[in-house]
Amino acid sequence: MTIEKSVTICPSGGFCFGVKRAVEIAETTAKTNKNKQCRTLGPIVHNKKVSERLEREGVKIVIEPEEMSSGILIIRSHGASPDVIARAKKQGLEIVDATCPFVKRIHGIAVKLSEEGIPVIIVGKYDHPEVQGILGYASGERYVVNSDSDIMNLKGLKKAGVVAQTTKTKEDFLRIAGYLLDAIPECHVYNTICSETLKRQKDAAALASVSDVIIAVGGRHSSNTSRLFEIVKKFCPKSYFIEELAELKKDWFENSKKVGIVYGASTPLEDVLEIKSVVEDILEISRIPLI
Amino acid sequence: MTIEKSVTICPSGGFCFGVKRAVEIAETTAKTNKNKQCRTLGPIVHNKKVSERLEREGVKIVIEPEEMSSGILIIRSHGASPDVIARAKKQGLEIVDATCPFVKRIHGIAVKLSEEGIPVIIVGKYDHPEVQGILGYASGERYVVNSDSDIMNLKGLKKAGVVAQTTKTKEDFLRIAGYLLDAIPECHVYNTICSETLKRQKDAAALASVSDVIIAVGGRHSSNTSRLFEIVKKFCPKSYFIEELAELKKDWFENSKKVGIVYGASTPLEDVLEIKSVVEDILEISRIPLI
Repeated sequence: MTIEKSVTICPSGGFCFGVKRAVEIAETTAKTNKNKQCRTLGPIVHNKKVSERLEREGVKIVIEPEEMSSGILIIRSHGASPDVIARAKKQGLEIVDATCPFVKRIHGIAVKLSEEGIPVIIVGKYDHPEVQGILGYASGERYVVNSDSDIMNLKGLKKAGVVAQTTKTKEDFLRIAGYLLDAIPECHVYNTICSETLKRQKDAAALASVSDVIIAVGGRHSSNTSRLFEIVKKFCPKSYFIEELAELKKDWFENSKKVGIVYGASTPLEDVLEIKSVVEDILEISRIPLI
Repeated sequence: MTIEKSVTICPSGGFCFGVKRAVEIAETTAKTNKNKQCRTLGPIVHNKKVSERLEREGVKIVIEPEEMSSGILIIRSHGASPDVIARAKKQGLEIVDATCPFVKRIHGIAVKLSEEGIPVIIVGKYDHPEVQGILGYASGERYVVNSDSDIMNLKGLKKAGVVAQTTKTKEDFLRIAGYLLDAIPECHVYNTICSETLKRQKDAAALASVSDVIIAVGGRHSSNTSRLFEIVKKFCPKSYFIEELAELKKDWFENSKKVGIVYGASTPLEDVLEIKSVVEDILEISRIPLI
């Protein structure tokens, strides 16, 4: 039996609901406020091309609200801490909130838990902007746990509320939450991994398990592409993480027939299609031209 | 090296706090109400001798409140459902509540969860009186889960509060709670296994792991002795469950040197000491008489 050569793009990937929404909000804000400075607090997505396009449309990036003296500050899908927003308001800036509703929901949970005096545990990466934002809403006792060993710092907690960074892998979250149940007698666990993330992780695992080579495409700083990469590596040892086409190496594909491409929430489909086309050339797959 | 023969009683065992308290309440109630009928709703402990002693002191057992036309109904440490208590009050009975405070706490959790519209999941044995009591306090959606397969019935729950029967093994509870975390996005987990139960389970496992034979002593219907028996069996294959001395078989101890005795929350120490003495005779351990 001859196995046909193929390059398959993972059926779920690319800009997620929250990112699409944030880009649209930024574009609309810029269009309808041509007389005002429009800035996003940090890059709206971890993607150079999109950042460059937004810049052409008038939306530049600031890292701190204090970099602006007037105009509109757009909060990206990751959200921001309430004290950062307070600082922006103090600067006299107008706020346009493009925080992903899934992240907004976690902010609400953190506020509710803190009001009830329940310590908040965020399962995620401490320095990720989403986690930093959530931390800001947890006004009482709060912790970030990213790995099993971090749990050692939580000794003696009698109760806790547990939330997940929206892009955490389900496997990691459930394992860590399981340890927390053992350590903390009253544990309010909110699985806040977003449904799109869950679907991507599932689809990526399925594709990796039938592929000889996997190319994971996404920004180096993209948390969700990193998680996807962790998953595909388990199912396909020949998995490679690239940010752009130029990084692709021909020798990765030697003796390979089935290539899969997975891509993160901040990767535009056009980049992926370009990579697909180049890999097809490397594999010498003949394409029927679209007329 | 000669291994010394020994019979060791597990350092924790016997009447737990809740059972001791319930027996004392029953005895005090009978003493101070000699002119009234005093009855417990079901046996106060799963132990014949104690039941017989209480009967001599005037405290008999009823199964339903309707068996009494007047007098005092004592609610045992397991607790009872509010509708059973309502039935007793309708009969004109006086209620003396000897429900274990650890169980009472679970009733409170079940009420709070139900008031908040959160379905209640009890990890425990459906027909155990403690579980039946808790179920009565869960006025909304409610489930009992005793094994992994029971989780199949919970499909589609968006949120749930999870409590444990106080005598559940920690291992079982954590495994089942872990499955629930995977199935239910918002899971409020209260580890309500009582601290004495946890200590007993730990001590029983430690003793079993260094014993050739384990004798588990307790009433056939005693849930907590059954759990202890499950634990010791894992660490010591030659483990036997007996209700009373007469069931002990000499050939269980052939070629054995280290014997351990574990006993449940409803087993009096006097029974255990008697068994210890007989096993010492079987092993031909010479005892220095106490002068």
